[in-house]
Amino acid sequence: MKKISLMGASGSIGIQTLDVIRQHPHAFSLVAFSVGKNLDVARSVIMEFKPALVSVQNKEDALILSSELPTGTKIMFGLEGLIAVATYDQAEVVVNAVLGSIGLEPTMKAIEAKKTIAIANKETLVTAGHLVMEAARKHAVNILPVDSEHSAIFQALQGEYKKNIERLVITASGGSFRDRTRAELKTVTVEDALKHPNWSMGAKITIDSASMMNKGLEVIEAHWLFALPYDQIDVLLHRESIIHSMIEFHDSSVMAQLGTPDMRVPIQYALTYPDRLPLKDATRLRLEDIGKLHFQSMDFDRFRCLGFAYEAGRIGGTMPTVLNAANESAVAAFLQGKISFLEIEDMIERAMHEHQLIQNPDLSTILEVDKETRHRVLSFKP
Amino acid sequence: MKKISLMGASGSIGIQTLDVIRQHPHAFSLVAFSVGKNLDVARSVIMEFKPALVSVQNKEDALILSSELPTGTKIMFGLEGLIAVATYDQAEVVVNAVLGSIGLEPTMKAIEAKKTIAIANKETLVTAGHLVMEAARKHAVNILPVDSEHSAIFQALQGEYKKNIERLVITASGGSFRDRTRAELKTVTVEDALKHPNWSMGAKITIDSASMMNKGLEVIEAHWLFALPYDQIDVLLHRESIIHSMIEFHDSSVMAQLGTPDMRVPIQYALTYPDRLPLKDATRLRLEDIGKLHFQSMDFDRFRCLGFAYEAGRIGGTMPTVLNAANESAVAAFLQGKISFLEIEDMIERAMHEHQLIQNPDLSTILEVDKETRHRVLSFKP
Repeated sequence: MKKISLMGASGSIGIQTLDVIRQHPHAFSLVAFSVGKNLDVARSVIMEFKPALVSVQNKEDALILSSELPTGTKIMFGLEGLIAVATYDQAEVVVNAVLGSIGLEPTMKAIEAKKTIAIANKETLVTAGHLVMEAARKHAVNILPVDSEHSAIFQALQGEYKKNIERLVITASGGSFRDRTRAELKTVTVEDALKHPNWSMGAKITIDSASMMNKGLEVIEAHWLFALPYDQIDVLLHRESIIHSMIEFHDSSVMAQLGTPDMRVPIQYALTYPDRLPLKDATRLRLEDIGKLHFQSMDFDRFRCLGFAYEAGRIGGTMPTVLNAANESAVAAFLQGKISFLEIEDMIERAMHEHQLIQNPDLSTILEVDKETRHRVLSFKP
Repeated sequence: MKKISLMGASGSIGIQTLDVIRQHPHAFSLVAFSVGKNLDVARSVIMEFKPALVSVQNKEDALILSSELPTGTKIMFGLEGLIAVATYDQAEVVVNAVLGSIGLEPTMKAIEAKKTIAIANKETLVTAGHLVMEAARKHAVNILPVDSEHSAIFQALQGEYKKNIERLVITASGGSFRDRTRAELKTVTVEDALKHPNWSMGAKITIDSASMMNKGLEVIEAHWLFALPYDQIDVLLHRESIIHSMIEFHDSSVMAQLGTPDMRVPIQYALTYPDRLPLKDATRLRLEDIGKLHFQSMDFDRFRCLGFAYEAGRIGGTMPTVLNAANESAVAAFLQGKISFLEIEDMIERAMHEHQLIQNPDLSTILEVDKETRHRVLSFKP
């Protein structure tokens, strides 16, 4: 029985993590979790899984839950609560599925507490990859990817030696604007952007898919997860998203992981690793029904955000934090109708250009730069 | 330094094995090899690699080579010589790249001598898989596949547990008649059949590709190599032959090995396993240049030989030997212009139908049935 602590139970990854745990009551148990403000989710998860510890964002919500529940579940709140969930004594695996930089500090604490980390929180690796991976090495902790692309690479790496890697090939669906020219991008609307061709996700990540920033952040994550230079990480346009990513080895052999899009597969792999368990209701891949898979080289002029991400990654230091924070602010502005789609790129470019780089930032520097950048970007546009 | 013994140096696999050894003089050395009647190849391989032991098919050729060579290379001949090559004291890995059932007995002796077997000889596994795998288990010997499909599955299996396999998916290019209907097959010529769309091979295997018997034999090999029932082995038409084969696990995750067609990759993997070495002049896979991969379900009415192979495999005993021997005789008759392409199927079907099954055959029974079937098939047609 593997004991699991889940940070971020009410998001898309959190909900699917609960589904995986639910399917395997003899393999997994949920011992702790956090949610933000969604008390309905908190209540139903507590009823179903009976965890020992729960954390919510606000004190008031914690008091409400405490008053309702006669069980032995301990209710906490805020960053302290989140850290308690991340470091909960009984937990062996901590699934980090929170959104945003709030996941950073709890993840570091979980590593120090020698928890295996299943990581779905992009910010943690993008902005603090150097700290996370160094801490993981120091405490001999496994960082297991949950993103389908990184999970694919991680699965392809099993039974192999890292020294034999020639390059990683991260596949990209191309997002909702895959087939549009730059000229056409000038006038796209929020509604256009939110139509992802292959699956439905949250608004932020759907926009990031359309701008290719999502893939850029994944490149930076891959750099840290697999300790490879950016020259050995490529991105390939693959509209069907069936090949989730690949490793080319120096003998020219390519190992790939494929499947129908179902986030429960990489989530479950992180929980069962290095073993697997059946996933009964998953849709099996039948390539004969799909018929064709398409591949296309990535156009860095068309998708400028991808270039920014490589640039920020190569510069290192606080630059990935600026990239990520500027992107979040700009995407929020786009979703609010304040800027056009292509102005997202302009804002990120300007934020990076104006940033005074700090090398080897510690956690508090990262959080400061993150905050500062978000404010700064808001001032770019009336 | 891995010491290699090579059975069948002058064939396609043999030549490419020598190329792999040549590329890595610090990793591999050739200590023994066999050829049939090609003395030119024998001479040049002896000069280049200076092996300690060489075997040729005939005594006369052995005497010619002995008289020419002042070096310390020992020259032998016939089955005795082949067995000496297969069991040569210094050899760690024996590459079985001979054609036909002559490879059977030497392979069994090599296993008893605890050599790792890199197997490219179909007959060995198709007709005597039960004996080979039982002996390999008994002597704790690795049987490493060299066929690109089985190597792909073997590579995909690294770091995984066999218990988690849902099914194997062996890909098939479809051969030279992939796009022809059965009606059109009635009148195809030998010349038509010898045009393989993706690569050039020997005549026999090119015909086997066109009839899909090659894939049928691979299904039987996969059954033995990976100890899986036939219900868990599927064949998928994939015209580009870029995905060399796949494993679907029970969590629905599919692991695949891809590459441009280059037999040196699986050969080298068998020699370096579980490590890899660079293969400098291999053509790298660039899916963006290929653009599209196609997949199609297998039509068992269109490709009857594939059905025969599944049937023979499921029946077991001496039936796979009959399948293989009848196919060899029929293909030879087709190549000689004696029968039509579709009559290959008829002859195999009749040979299997008339055969008196023997369960659990030993080596001599297999060889007898093999011989008897070849004779019998010749009598089917004036």
